[in-house]
Amino acid sequence: MKFATLKDQTPDGRLLVVSRDLARCVDASAIAPSLLHAVQHWAKVEAPLRQLSDSLNSGATAGQPFDPQRCSAPLPRSPQWCDGSAFLNHAKLMEQAFKTPPIPDLESIPLMYQGASDDFLGPHDDVALPSETDGIDFEGEFGVVLDHVAMRSTPQDALKQVRLLVQLNDWSLRAMGPREMRTGFGFLQAKPSTSFAPVAVTPDELGDAWRDGRVHLELHVEWNGAHFGHPHGGQMSFGFGGLIAHAARTRRLTAGTIIGTGTVSNSSRAVGSACIAERRVIEMIDHGEARTGFMRFGDRVRMQARLPGQDTGPFGVIDQHVVAAP
Amino acid sequence: MKFATLKDQTPDGRLLVVSRDLARCVDASAIAPSLLHAVQHWAKVEAPLRQLSDSLNSGATAGQPFDPQRCSAPLPRSPQWCDGSAFLNHAKLMEQAFKTPPIPDLESIPLMYQGASDDFLGPHDDVALPSETDGIDFEGEFGVVLDHVAMRSTPQDALKQVRLLVQLNDWSLRAMGPREMRTGFGFLQAKPSTSFAPVAVTPDELGDAWRDGRVHLELHVEWNGAHFGHPHGGQMSFGFGGLIAHAARTRRLTAGTIIGTGTVSNSSRAVGSACIAERRVIEMIDHGEARTGFMRFGDRVRMQARLPGQDTGPFGVIDQHVVAAP
Repeated sequence: MKFATLKDQTPDGRLLVVSRDLARCVDASAIAPSLLHAVQHWAKVEAPLRQLSDSLNSGATAGQPFDPQRCSAPLPRSPQWCDGSAFLNHAKLMEQAFKTPPIPDLESIPLMYQGASDDFLGPHDDVALPSETDGIDFEGEFGVVLDHVAMRSTPQDALKQVRLLVQLNDWSLRAMGPREMRTGFGFLQAKPSTSFAPVAVTPDELGDAWRDGRVHLELHVEWNGAHFGHPHGGQMSFGFGGLIAHAARTRRLTAGTIIGTGTVSNSSRAVGSACIAERRVIEMIDHGEARTGFMRFGDRVRMQARLPGQDTGPFGVIDQHVVAAP
Repeated sequence: MKFATLKDQTPDGRLLVVSRDLARCVDASAIAPSLLHAVQHWAKVEAPLRQLSDSLNSGATAGQPFDPQRCSAPLPRSPQWCDGSAFLNHAKLMEQAFKTPPIPDLESIPLMYQGASDDFLGPHDDVALPSETDGIDFEGEFGVVLDHVAMRSTPQDALKQVRLLVQLNDWSLRAMGPREMRTGFGFLQAKPSTSFAPVAVTPDELGDAWRDGRVHLELHVEWNGAHFGHPHGGQMSFGFGGLIAHAARTRRLTAGTIIGTGTVSNSSRAVGSACIAERRVIEMIDHGEARTGFMRFGDRVRMQARLPGQDTGPFGVIDQHVVAAP
């Protein structure tokens, strides 16, 4: 099943079921008013939602054209957002970039920070930020939306609680990052609101591309219309099972919790990067200096996970402009 | 006004208005179903809630006995929870205890971490934790519940958005803290669910004890029936205005966001501490070794902010046992 959320006057928006080809959709709010509600009542709503989805995909339900411009994030807010840094290629490069002290247990314990989850951005919302001097950067990622996860779940059990897969941009302000890391208290000002692609999908929609707790798709990133990178999600050093179990080590996670991969990053330089900071540190290594600046107001970033050999993907497109906050 | 939340079958619970002396209460769910709903619709509900509160306090409304045992946290879940470390006396002692690198800008920029807000504990709920070897510790604190705060608000404007004051216990697992600080990603496993005293109050209820964006009350802490500390909230190095503005530097905060002080801590050793870790570092300084162990399953901690010369306080009492998670 594929879902999106139509913006309305409510904080959680209105649930849409979207056709497999993302061309059409149908209002599903008679089954569950919002996608958050659906995830929080999954056992009850899964079967009727699947029936509606099947009917839409078969053409028995005509539906209406799907317009991502009218969508918020699939979950405009969620109970919790924890973002990993599961691509160690990225984590190791960032250590060099930030010149922070060596991260302990990097190979054996997932890195993860607690993010704000009260105010997510939709795929075409403007990204209002206070200053160009803050080092505005994008971070292309994948994520999972969870059902309830018990404290001390194993990675195997944790993975069974994945209800939806999502694609996201974890906006970052690089001027704040290193200082906040040095405090030991983690990111706060360095992490403004996160953006999401319009469509959340159940894992079965990915077929073989969802395996080993990893999304095996390339994430294509364009900055101001130019190709920036297309790293592959399959190279996660920790799978989602391990990430979720890490988050649930000392607490239960309520339904609707989102766990992210951190910036998708591959060891091959030929595929480019999914954030500017990573390109900059590679430039420093190669040329002794960073040559690429961070984003300016008016800049545009486009992100799309793609099926092999195609220019479409299951989650739709994030396509946003960065603007000056009022 | 004073508010509490009756546990029911809903995630946000049922709104109660509580009498000034905490003896009686009245169901206010006809005005707002939950306290979270009230905070998110403050302009609309403040006047009718005040009318009901006045009627309860005057005796015109009889109400019923107030039973904190039946209460959850005033907000059993909230959109966001950011906890400061605004008592620098504590922060400096903890630097010594954790042997972490010096924290940059400690005197000028507030320390703050993003906490989980999806699953708070009530004042008499058992605290289920996975292991005694994790270094189970309490942290007595004050907090504020906010209306919407705009991005880049000044401390003065930010303070105007305070709707409620709360008292809380920011449970901490000390075995995880230093390692998570060294990663730079901040606390995650080190911070299980936070507990709250039963009653949230509007700032006017504190009279002169709410001034300069600080709660000028002693926080009395007992561990297994023995006095542990009674530090005073007025010694915050940063007031709530500064803490809120820090959190809103690069993002707007949605209504219902909670900001905490961090462990209440005074420079005078005569008043004791509001967490075990702080007592342990003082023991290390004084005796060369920590003599006090962390909590064991079955242990009990009681916290109560008190009015000068009285053994009662505006928020009621947190009184919990730590138990082994199933």
